[in-house]
Amino acid sequence: MISTDALRELLPEGRVFDDPDVLAAHSRDRATFCPAGTPAALVRAYDTDDVAAVLKWAHENRVPVVPQGARSGLSGAANALDGCVLLSLEKMDAILDIDPDEQLAVVQPGVVNGVLAAAVAEKGLFYPPDPGSRSISTIGGNVSTNAGGMCCVKYGVTGDFVRGLEVVLADGRVMRTGRRTAKGVAGYDLTRLMVGAEGTLGVVTEVTVALRPASAQPLTAVAFFPEVAGSARTVSGYLAEGYQPSVLEFMDASSVKAVQQIADLGFPEGMAAMLLVQSDRGADAPADLAAFERVARAMGAAEVVVSDSAAEGEMLMQARRLVGDAHEKLGKALLIDDVCVPRRHLVDLVEGLQRIAEEHRVQVLCSGHAGDGNMHPVVAFDDGDADETARAQKAFDAIMQLGLDLGGTITGEHGIGQLKREWLGHELDEAGLWASRAIKAALDPHNVLNPTRVLP
Amino acid sequence: MISTDALRELLPEGRVFDDPDVLAAHSRDRATFCPAGTPAALVRAYDTDDVAAVLKWAHENRVPVVPQGARSGLSGAANALDGCVLLSLEKMDAILDIDPDEQLAVVQPGVVNGVLAAAVAEKGLFYPPDPGSRSISTIGGNVSTNAGGMCCVKYGVTGDFVRGLEVVLADGRVMRTGRRTAKGVAGYDLTRLMVGAEGTLGVVTEVTVALRPASAQPLTAVAFFPEVAGSARTVSGYLAEGYQPSVLEFMDASSVKAVQQIADLGFPEGMAAMLLVQSDRGADAPADLAAFERVARAMGAAEVVVSDSAAEGEMLMQARRLVGDAHEKLGKALLIDDVCVPRRHLVDLVEGLQRIAEEHRVQVLCSGHAGDGNMHPVVAFDDGDADETARAQKAFDAIMQLGLDLGGTITGEHGIGQLKREWLGHELDEAGLWASRAIKAALDPHNVLNPTRVLP
Repeated sequence: MISTDALRELLPEGRVFDDPDVLAAHSRDRATFCPAGTPAALVRAYDTDDVAAVLKWAHENRVPVVPQGARSGLSGAANALDGCVLLSLEKMDAILDIDPDEQLAVVQPGVVNGVLAAAVAEKGLFYPPDPGSRSISTIGGNVSTNAGGMCCVKYGVTGDFVRGLEVVLADGRVMRTGRRTAKGVAGYDLTRLMVGAEGTLGVVTEVTVALRPASAQPLTAVAFFPEVAGSARTVSGYLAEGYQPSVLEFMDASSVKAVQQIADLGFPEGMAAMLLVQSDRGADAPADLAAFERVARAMGAAEVVVSDSAAEGEMLMQARRLVGDAHEKLGKALLIDDVCVPRRHLVDLVEGLQRIAEEHRVQVLCSGHAGDGNMHPVVAFDDGDADETARAQKAFDAIMQLGLDLGGTITGEHGIGQLKREWLGHELDEAGLWASRAIKAALDPHNVLNPTRVLP
Repeated sequence: MISTDALRELLPEGRVFDDPDVLAAHSRDRATFCPAGTPAALVRAYDTDDVAAVLKWAHENRVPVVPQGARSGLSGAANALDGCVLLSLEKMDAILDIDPDEQLAVVQPGVVNGVLAAAVAEKGLFYPPDPGSRSISTIGGNVSTNAGGMCCVKYGVTGDFVRGLEVVLADGRVMRTGRRTAKGVAGYDLTRLMVGAEGTLGVVTEVTVALRPASAQPLTAVAFFPEVAGSARTVSGYLAEGYQPSVLEFMDASSVKAVQQIADLGFPEGMAAMLLVQSDRGADAPADLAAFERVARAMGAAEVVVSDSAAEGEMLMQARRLVGDAHEKLGKALLIDDVCVPRRHLVDLVEGLQRIAEEHRVQVLCSGHAGDGNMHPVVAFDDGDADETARAQKAFDAIMQLGLDLGGTITGEHGIGQLKREWLGHELDEAGLWASRAIKAALDPHNVLNPTRVLP
């Protein structure tokens, strides 16, 4: 066990915590079924020097370090390891610069996504990446998982907006990657290597993000389908026609019902699926939504509502955002999956989920970013029942296998973390695993940065 | 010296060439002032197996391998090294798949950019990255340099469109990276690590690119300025208002004059700079260009022409594309630079270029992707004059230093290659250089893949 005294000597006062209750309160992110170890200490970093001092010390003393943001992740990447230092970046939460001329912002990793989005909106700018956790998750965490969200279908994911980083390497050296300019190809893309690495290759201490001009106020439509297949076909059919919605989301009957129990939006009953679409193309948006209605009805939609009010549109978006909370209120344990498939296989995915639910006798709810083919099937089960729990875990695995079988990926936006690391070996080939391990060993030779995460 | 017999035994007939004339004809890309060595052999790969066999053999025998596409690069990355195997991917030029539903294409590396763009356009799709070399350069080369172009200001660079790769690693193992789906975060971003690595980390043998729906036919405007500063201020001012042109290009007086000598477009005389702008936002395009005219006139434009004909717009774009040829027709040696600066510093950049030209008594022409802040200053000089040549090289270096001093990068889209590798140490910090070298050593321990390129 490490001595926290050594850490205290390295750092300014008030940075190091070892009270067992404090440690226990910080030992987990939001992944279920991910074991968490007992940390030796929690360090709250207030600046890059703090981070560098911790990593230099950890590197020299071979102590595992688990970087943490808001611990809102869903893959266990921020769970404690036995004897580790939890390195919290939450207090590094300053927005250092918002530059409207260059359309970029420079932030510390602890800035909450929604706080940044609101701050740039005040200057007429737009930070698109909008994970479902945006009200609580941090930019550092978003970068480390390459987080997605609802806007990705048009605007791309977190990594598409990261221009440069300050990263502390495993041995405590500070590295600047990337650039502030719109373009740049000087050397290897160390920025993108760090994005999505879940804290295993370095600790992000500053992020330069690209912004966009504010988009037009979106128009919103919803469509309800008596058959799930019709909704999936609507997604692929609409996009294949060349439309570029800013949001295109799916909710199955169970998800709609769960949301209705929190906020009754008067959705029709007896429907199997709902799609929610937005267009932010200004004068072209009404035509975009009219086309959506045409496609949806051709694919069997029983009801399509095109909203002409921004307030109503926002209310419908809130309903979509409530899905996570609504699922949690079911009173069951949840295993949240994150497969992404080619859009033409959305039908096969949703039909496959029904088979998996039946075969393993568990409930599988589903919502997701249908426009990207990125769905979040959720296995809901009674975790007091060992047999049902075992079946739930089998269903969870079967969903990943289904995603792979359909030419997709086991994770569209949540990351590998601890939850899916054994599955990474199913998705990557041998050479890819070798290259990943070689890079990890080269940049973190003593394996102190979030060891046992990501790589199987 | 290696025996080409050994290579011939490994490969099907007709792959290996060692005729000195053939080798000499393949020993250079289009960079000036980059020495080229004498290769031992040229291998024309016809499939991934050929590439794997060459690399496995080279790895075992410690023979340097220089991957080549169309040799249209401007950084010397494809120049021969003494005793190397030139590994040409030009014959791997099949478009393997164009998938309109998923909006992606799968191609071999030797497919010419313009061929792919035309093929997808026939299916109502759009492959945006459009380097100036698009009629001759290959997708493999575009990936290896992370090539840009005129559309980047709105649509992004090559790397933004690469979803997945097949890459042969240094030891001959074949690795698949990335995905076919819209999103995916499984493991490290090996795709983006290979993009822009200029053949030093692996040889790309297949590329999966994202496509977009076809854009609306663009509208075009040009503006002429008596002072260069006015044009630079127009760029930053127009973009700061939130407009998103699909093209925003700059040409200085010398570039305009050189183009006029190839094709007289009736441009006004006595102007210091020209901007060319396009909007492809359909019904919104006229308003976009009206706003451009307003900003340009406020910044001192003497003449603004908004074209209402697609044919005229295409003619103006052709004029911009002719700049490279026009510069070559000046009958001077050229050193083509590629700095990218924050847009607000475009004024400082163009003013700095004038100072550099005066100080070193050489001509500095300039054109570029002003909307990205990515400019191509070109030092034109008499290479029969040793003193002028030495001054030209100093001017070339001074331009890179100016780019760095203005918060920019030494290369926006052409890459480091051989030409700028000593300068990479000025842009990256020590930790960044260390990390880059560590990754190179991990993935190519015998340093056979394009050694001495990129890293100083």
